[in-house]
Amino acid sequence: MTNESRIAAPRLAAFVTRAFAAAGLPEADAKIIAELMLEADLRGSDTHGVIRLPLYVRRIRAGGINPQPNIRVVGERPSAALIDGDNGMGHLVMRRAAHLAIEKAKVTGIGWVGARMSNHAGPAALYATMALPHDMIGLYFAVGSNNHLPPWGGSETLLGTNPMAVAVPAHDEPAIVLDMAPTVAAYGKVRLKAQRGEPMPVGWMIDRGGKPLTDAKRADDGYLLPIGDYKGYGLSLIIGILAGALNGAALGRDVIDFVKDTGKPTNTGHAVAAIAIESFMPAEKFKRAVDAVIRDIRASRRLPGVERIYLPGEQSHAKFLERSTGGVPMPKPLRDSLDALARELNVPPLE
Amino acid sequence: MTNESRIAAPRLAAFVTRAFAAAGLPEADAKIIAELMLEADLRGSDTHGVIRLPLYVRRIRAGGINPQPNIRVVGERPSAALIDGDNGMGHLVMRRAAHLAIEKAKVTGIGWVGARMSNHAGPAALYATMALPHDMIGLYFAVGSNNHLPPWGGSETLLGTNPMAVAVPAHDEPAIVLDMAPTVAAYGKVRLKAQRGEPMPVGWMIDRGGKPLTDAKRADDGYLLPIGDYKGYGLSLIIGILAGALNGAALGRDVIDFVKDTGKPTNTGHAVAAIAIESFMPAEKFKRAVDAVIRDIRASRRLPGVERIYLPGEQSHAKFLERSTGGVPMPKPLRDSLDALARELNVPPLE
Repeated sequence: MTNESRIAAPRLAAFVTRAFAAAGLPEADAKIIAELMLEADLRGSDTHGVIRLPLYVRRIRAGGINPQPNIRVVGERPSAALIDGDNGMGHLVMRRAAHLAIEKAKVTGIGWVGARMSNHAGPAALYATMALPHDMIGLYFAVGSNNHLPPWGGSETLLGTNPMAVAVPAHDEPAIVLDMAPTVAAYGKVRLKAQRGEPMPVGWMIDRGGKPLTDAKRADDGYLLPIGDYKGYGLSLIIGILAGALNGAALGRDVIDFVKDTGKPTNTGHAVAAIAIESFMPAEKFKRAVDAVIRDIRASRRLPGVERIYLPGEQSHAKFLERSTGGVPMPKPLRDSLDALARELNVPPLE
Repeated sequence: MTNESRIAAPRLAAFVTRAFAAAGLPEADAKIIAELMLEADLRGSDTHGVIRLPLYVRRIRAGGINPQPNIRVVGERPSAALIDGDNGMGHLVMRRAAHLAIEKAKVTGIGWVGARMSNHAGPAALYATMALPHDMIGLYFAVGSNNHLPPWGGSETLLGTNPMAVAVPAHDEPAIVLDMAPTVAAYGKVRLKAQRGEPMPVGWMIDRGGKPLTDAKRADDGYLLPIGDYKGYGLSLIIGILAGALNGAALGRDVIDFVKDTGKPTNTGHAVAAIAIESFMPAEKFKRAVDAVIRDIRASRRLPGVERIYLPGEQSHAKFLERSTGGVPMPKPLRDSLDALARELNVPPLE
């Protein structure tokens, strides 16, 4: 085995598939999840792709995720539906939800599908972008899988880094894809700083006294800060309501930490919506207008020292192109954890 | 005339109505707009209510707003519609749009209505909250009426303080109403600092070199900063696309300054959506769950020195109750401008 730093996506997907199959998932489901996880890695979501595989498997083996769920629509109207994920993998639940939202949008112009009893589903962009090939705008909201954010002025973490994504198709340009959490820093970035022994910038977290917290190793004693102060708090709450409360999923005090409580269902909630552009104008005209906005922004005057102005999702798109041919980065710690997983599951390791 | 500091809402609404009627609007339309503008003032949106009346009238008289528009639905599907506002007052256009979204949501579960050829419509919350009495969640997005925000890293103001609002009904608690722009500070706050000769905090604006700008009198030489750096930039762009580009309304370089270019149509775009809660769960159950979240947040532990944790919209609700009985604050400069307007329009002044 060479200590390679890149690995071709299909080989990695094959490994993820056999790991899930060994953990008890039907082969077809394992393959679907593997493809979505690889898409995350290809798009540069290094903290939300294959790196999560050992945790997912740990949760499945601990009884915290149902490997063979009966995912079903439990409520339906022409433009809306509610899906019960039966505690299955979030990727399966939200792929189904996105497809249903798109089908509804084809008929009525808009589709909005909520889900409860789901699980972590990887990066938000995965499901918002499913609308793009259908000439639709995609929206996605989720309740984060643990609470790290207090209300503004508070010191109890009742809210999460609840993510949202919006994907807008362009004609010749890459789609605009905004994928963000309403906190200044993602918790994954905090963990990375702690691993590396580096200080965090002021503004990422505060301690229990409300003072800036820069020692990432003390993150458990502090709180993430929302973007725009009370605005990010409001966004997190609203996203939590749309994705969680509206669907009968967990929000606030009911959210468990999916890393620590591996044996319990999270009752994770999400929502995905699709807006058919043809309801408002010809899709081609819209996409050309989006191209024009993209080009105006990219070519606009820059502040001193700024080399390039990026559109939301543009850097992910560039990574996708580069990694699709060059392979997915495979740092040694990730490789080691996947090798350990292979031994644990008694499946052939990553080749 | 006494230099009173408060005025009863009905008296102020009557004055606004006669001002619009004198400017050429049909009496019924004038009354509808006056009621919405007063609702803004009652809810504490002092910068987006009656204070805008002289500007609206100036625009109408300069030919920049059509006083007798033919507001019509130009595209329609079961859950979506596009309205052409015929350059009428934004309040009329978006009230109609919100009502249509609600009607559609009653039938299909979701309604989403976009508008083009509209105008400034006051605070975003006005239209999101129209969904509340119908046991629906309301969403609203608008393209701001001038561009003060550059793309992240840029120094050309291609984007606006594009506002969004989301309103969520509760059972016994006041509704949750998030009404925000994706910039750290609203431009109205910058103007207020300039008027008062006070410095702005670091973080509100930067100058053309990218350095913090704190002298509000130099605001024309600087740029607002987005919340969460590139995140607020992305939000502004996405809101602009949903409210503007999707509806064939102005976005980016096409946005004119509605304060300076009073004679030209702004082609302002907005979007309003309604989500019927019954599509997902019984409305009463949802509203009681929202009550529980509100109470958990309000009662949660506070940072040192924080007296109270507020929910989004809670302070506006308190102002609404207080001002509904105590009257709308009427500072001398506003009173003077309304008196001057009365003389200009040859209508009886505010009593």
